[in-house]
Amino acid sequence: METLILTRDDLANLVGHVGVHPLMDEVIKALRQTFLEFDEAVTEVRQRDGFAYVVPNPGVLEWMPMMQVGELAVVKMVGYNPLSPRLYDVPTIVSTISLYDIATAHLVALIDGTFATALRTGAASAVATEVLAHPSSEVVGLVGCGAQAVTQLHALSRLFEIRKVLVHDTDAAVARSFLDRAGFLGLDVEVAERSRLEEESDIICTATSVGIGEPPVIEGERLKPWIHINAVGSDLPQKIELPLALLKRSLVCPDHLAQAVVEGECQRLSPGEIGPTLIELVKEAERYAPHRTSPTVFDSTGFALEDKAVLQVLLAFARELGLGRSVPVETIAADPTDPYSFVRVGRPGLMPETAEVGASAPAGMARLHIG
Amino acid sequence: METLILTRDDLANLVGHVGVHPLMDEVIKALRQTFLEFDEAVTEVRQRDGFAYVVPNPGVLEWMPMMQVGELAVVKMVGYNPLSPRLYDVPTIVSTISLYDIATAHLVALIDGTFATALRTGAASAVATEVLAHPSSEVVGLVGCGAQAVTQLHALSRLFEIRKVLVHDTDAAVARSFLDRAGFLGLDVEVAERSRLEEESDIICTATSVGIGEPPVIEGERLKPWIHINAVGSDLPQKIELPLALLKRSLVCPDHLAQAVVEGECQRLSPGEIGPTLIELVKEAERYAPHRTSPTVFDSTGFALEDKAVLQVLLAFARELGLGRSVPVETIAADPTDPYSFVRVGRPGLMPETAEVGASAPAGMARLHIG
Repeated sequence: METLILTRDDLANLVGHVGVHPLMDEVIKALRQTFLEFDEAVTEVRQRDGFAYVVPNPGVLEWMPMMQVGELAVVKMVGYNPLSPRLYDVPTIVSTISLYDIATAHLVALIDGTFATALRTGAASAVATEVLAHPSSEVVGLVGCGAQAVTQLHALSRLFEIRKVLVHDTDAAVARSFLDRAGFLGLDVEVAERSRLEEESDIICTATSVGIGEPPVIEGERLKPWIHINAVGSDLPQKIELPLALLKRSLVCPDHLAQAVVEGECQRLSPGEIGPTLIELVKEAERYAPHRTSPTVFDSTGFALEDKAVLQVLLAFARELGLGRSVPVETIAADPTDPYSFVRVGRPGLMPETAEVGASAPAGMARLHIG
Repeated sequence: METLILTRDDLANLVGHVGVHPLMDEVIKALRQTFLEFDEAVTEVRQRDGFAYVVPNPGVLEWMPMMQVGELAVVKMVGYNPLSPRLYDVPTIVSTISLYDIATAHLVALIDGTFATALRTGAASAVATEVLAHPSSEVVGLVGCGAQAVTQLHALSRLFEIRKVLVHDTDAAVARSFLDRAGFLGLDVEVAERSRLEEESDIICTATSVGIGEPPVIEGERLKPWIHINAVGSDLPQKIELPLALLKRSLVCPDHLAQAVVEGECQRLSPGEIGPTLIELVKEAERYAPHRTSPTVFDSTGFALEDKAVLQVLLAFARELGLGRSVPVETIAADPTDPYSFVRVGRPGLMPETAEVGASAPAGMARLHIG
């Protein structure tokens, strides 16, 4: 029983071979298919849980588990540490995804979740936008121009003919650098004042690290009547991106209801004010099409079903391309009733001798050095 | 940022170099130290949570997270699948342990948890037994002779002069094979009727896969007055190993109270009937020493603090011996605000071209093949 480990370089090769556009197209397709086929009788998706902390910096480390009954479990570990880019040159969101065989608990695969999270978060917005936005939408506004904004725009560009992109960030340098980072899309991208962005956009994505207690990241007074907003930056209780009045007059669609009422825009709405979920939107797209001419919000908190979908896409490509390395991680050997048998199998005759003469404890054991 | 991956062979080398006895001694020492130093202000230990299922076979897959505030988080994933030895030649308990840097959510290390679980479960019993058992205990009874029984006996043998070991299993072949599996300990081990085991043992370890609703695995009527029992096989709500009458007349000490009242022997006791926790036992060993002459039970459910302790021991030895391999897993590259930058860094000039021409979707993507 071996574990397939896909390294960063394997993933770079994978993206290189597949191409960023076909890869995003596959992720969008896989998400749509996953939502269409979703059956709560065979799929258990847990609300994420985790540790929140303020030292050494404010952030969270969360686990997002899902189980396909009788088959597999996927657990994404994801950290949200908004000071990481500035302090460590590390993305705000860092993540890994693990796949388990539910029959034995064997770890089947371990891959990066940082890129996967960006991909699927973009793809989820695209899937929601496809159902809810005006079909002739051609101006996209991005509020918050960090890593997630890149894949928001990328995914939208695969489903909409985008004529113009207006971008805004509280950090002007981040807004400017977005032009380079999005250069591979060949779109007309312009840094804009927030007021202009709000007035001219057909679709807006908010992907910010706005602080708890801070005002919303858009004003929401002078939006187009058919505005569709993907509110992506929901990560924490009390963190909100949109004005309450805008939410009240919009059809607000959460990705995962139980989670969205805790950490999404939905936390400020009563149950009767919350619209269909992303899964319901996809399953009954015709039914919700009339909302394309009035304000709609996709309240994206991110959930484990999306992670499973993108994992499947990445692993399928990796296997086709022969990427990754299989290594035995768990100590499973000939005799399942002998925890030491892997030592005997690996080094026959070893244990009787070494049981007598052992190394002393290494120095520095009291405190684990990490990093 | 790389992840240290310790493979099964690395771990076999580690055990070979260190020696099984010095390794167990270090784990016992680390557990004792971890409990002594435990401070709930800086250590957050979560009750385990997970998926329970009946297909393809009955079992659970659980996550056990803990955080050392400001420093690190450890998450053990562990499966309990009692049919695995028979159906797949795989241990009942299969596990992996991950270490995260809390500042960035970086995955610092991934190692096997199967062996670590056996080690620390044995060591935890030894630490509890050292406080609660009669100091002149010399006969150990093992009820349930699977993988966990091996490390139960091993750990006890490091702290007690064991004259005789009596073993019993509902599967006679498993009881017989235990003699070989425990051979490296050089002890006098004998397969025995359960009644004799109960009468002659000073210390008993129950480590069984007894089914829910089945009777207790010992009778508990004719035990020595100073009997100490390590009830190790607690994994599931309603799974119990000991008779209620025995629990009522014993000092019952859980490892993790919140967990033990859900899945341990403590689930049948009221709060007033439950004794000190393992941490309290270690911190105030003198205070509880008088109980060495009356019946005591260690209700071992296993908790994340133990996993952190054994992880630290294994990683410290691995680093000292230069074992394991560091690989970049997370897609972290030059620009933390560009999710595609790792592709550009890895293969310069790649993206513009391949963005246009991509591979088609691989076959068989609809269903992920695992195993």
